[in-house]
Amino acid sequence: MNAPQEPPVTLLPTGFIDLLQHEAEAEAQGIARIMDVFSQYGYEQVRPPLIEFEASLLAGGGQALSAQTFRILDPDSRRMLALRPDMTTQISRIAATRLAERPRPLRLSYAGSCVLVGTPGRDGARQITQVGLELIGPDSAEADAEVILVTSSALSALQVANVSIDLSCPNIAKALIATETFTAAQEATLIQALDRKDVAAVRDLGGTLAPVLTQLLRATGPARHALEILTQLDLPLSAADEVRRLQEVVNAVWTADPTIILTIDPAEFRGWQYHTGLCMTVFAADVREEIGRGGRYLSYEQEAACGMTLRPEALLKATPPVSLKKRVYLPHGTSAARSHKLREDGFATVAGLNEVSSPCAEARRLRCAYYILQDKLVEV
Amino acid sequence: MNAPQEPPVTLLPTGFIDLLQHEAEAEAQGIARIMDVFSQYGYEQVRPPLIEFEASLLAGGGQALSAQTFRILDPDSRRMLALRPDMTTQISRIAATRLAERPRPLRLSYAGSCVLVGTPGRDGARQITQVGLELIGPDSAEADAEVILVTSSALSALQVANVSIDLSCPNIAKALIATETFTAAQEATLIQALDRKDVAAVRDLGGTLAPVLTQLLRATGPARHALEILTQLDLPLSAADEVRRLQEVVNAVWTADPTIILTIDPAEFRGWQYHTGLCMTVFAADVREEIGRGGRYLSYEQEAACGMTLRPEALLKATPPVSLKKRVYLPHGTSAARSHKLREDGFATVAGLNEVSSPCAEARRLRCAYYILQDKLVEV
Repeated sequence: MNAPQEPPVTLLPTGFIDLLQHEAEAEAQGIARIMDVFSQYGYEQVRPPLIEFEASLLAGGGQALSAQTFRILDPDSRRMLALRPDMTTQISRIAATRLAERPRPLRLSYAGSCVLVGTPGRDGARQITQVGLELIGPDSAEADAEVILVTSSALSALQVANVSIDLSCPNIAKALIATETFTAAQEATLIQALDRKDVAAVRDLGGTLAPVLTQLLRATGPARHALEILTQLDLPLSAADEVRRLQEVVNAVWTADPTIILTIDPAEFRGWQYHTGLCMTVFAADVREEIGRGGRYLSYEQEAACGMTLRPEALLKATPPVSLKKRVYLPHGTSAARSHKLREDGFATVAGLNEVSSPCAEARRLRCAYYILQDKLVEV
Repeated sequence: MNAPQEPPVTLLPTGFIDLLQHEAEAEAQGIARIMDVFSQYGYEQVRPPLIEFEASLLAGGGQALSAQTFRILDPDSRRMLALRPDMTTQISRIAATRLAERPRPLRLSYAGSCVLVGTPGRDGARQITQVGLELIGPDSAEADAEVILVTSSALSALQVANVSIDLSCPNIAKALIATETFTAAQEATLIQALDRKDVAAVRDLGGTLAPVLTQLLRATGPARHALEILTQLDLPLSAADEVRRLQEVVNAVWTADPTIILTIDPAEFRGWQYHTGLCMTVFAADVREEIGRGGRYLSYEQEAACGMTLRPEALLKATPPVSLKKRVYLPHGTSAARSHKLREDGFATVAGLNEVSSPCAEARRLRCAYYILQDKLVEV
């Protein structure tokens, strides 16, 4: 038997990549821009660590990501550590501990890398960047709307084109279903049918709720159209409350900025594991995957919270290319004052470390757009 | 026996911390500022992943950090992954693979988090941030000097006060020692004595080299003074070459910027495990630990390289406090146009999500310096 061949040391594991110049700059600048907009709305940056005790990271809502979490044994504490698969749990922990005494509403923002175990054989990203905000304390339509408005403002600042924010509220259908006596299995099958928008199956499985549930499926699309249908449905009190809240959120958003595109998909359930009210998914027309997601949930000690997490890897596909500084080649011996002035003027100076016969050719070789000749800036 | 009590889920493992508002902002802004200066000198940003195959991360110079590296089994490849304890090895890999065809000098910059296993019982940081640059290709005094100049420029941009850069060159003493026939044990003891600046021990152990080695110990301190001594020593050819190179580096730095404070410690060996020439340690007067370190080394396939890694955690102790946007409380119902204008003017707007009886009291409660009253900006 041959020993298994070691792959070259230059290979990266599936799902982990190098970002090179333009990509790395775009990510860094994009994150900085988003965080700046968050700060303009009074969101204060926190930076939790990459690693925590497993028990902390997987507490509460974090439990949902347990199977996607890498663990490591800590030689110091002899306890299991975990690499964060998500940052929301960390922000909740900070809000409930070090910032417990801070007045509410508490507005926090964060940016950082997370690591997922991934699915063997699939080549999805396993290191993902998250940039997000959490509005902790209030439970109101105004608070939900603020999360949407700030998100929209950040995406505008990045010139992400054709953004739409899809609102869903699994509680509407759940409140309806709770009025009937389904078995757990029936209920699960019915929810799957709703999630698939399978009208025939919903009719079959819905019993006396079939008419209202099929109407609910029709209430999908632009928010104005969907709300017209939703507000006319004959709903039990708690479901009607959810619809009213949805209407209030849409009104509050459009009062502040009527250009924001909102859609509604009331019967979406997928991926909303710990959310307790409004759920939001952010799309840009030219990007297949979602560029952000968020919603209302309960933070530590059942404190109300609503948040949004943006995914730079996805959303930067919909932004204009990042502009880099123009490079100027400085022949060896160019004065420090001259090169200082060029940097002040916004150029990147590329110093010649030795004499060359043709500064122009050397500038071209080093991908510079300009070089200095007799103290003058000359185009290559 | 009682079951061991689980600590509260809010506790963090030793060496991992949360950065809150001012600290998190200072780190983000400081890193962005340093990276911007690097880009002004033509350094192009790359962003390698947090995790690689163990074999890649610990190749070459990376081996030195093996004992400080966390490993994880990858369920996808069934191979060992490692969390990077340092980024230099990653930059070397990128230079030798995806950027192999790029013309040299290749100038790369990077910023990111690294994780160390740490020493059980000690409470040093286990997550550290690195911001650095690598100048790959040339092996010359001009290249060494550029690394010093760009570092100094970045620290000036951050207003780090009283920076000094300490230069050492273990090769001078090693070249001297190689001219005598010491046993390996004798050599190790002698190097330890030199490193400790233990003149008596160096005299005892140095044999015929004792006079020149004790002179070498005297050549410590401000660069001008140290070089006066070093250049007058009677040295073997290779050690004299190292001194000449050191003199050239100092001259090149001072030609470009005579205000840079350089010191020399020719007999320092600690921590320089894979360096092949000049070694640099950066200090600021008010910070006990070093704020950066770097030097000349051989990259993949023996390519010449010189680099510098700055430690924001340390250097931000020597920078002026970060200035945050002034917060303005907006009573519920403030117009979108008004709040937009305030953000454009550089304020952070804190929206009132409901009516309050005293906007002034609410502004104070939410740590705002101002609030809006009848469309006017009023100080709290």
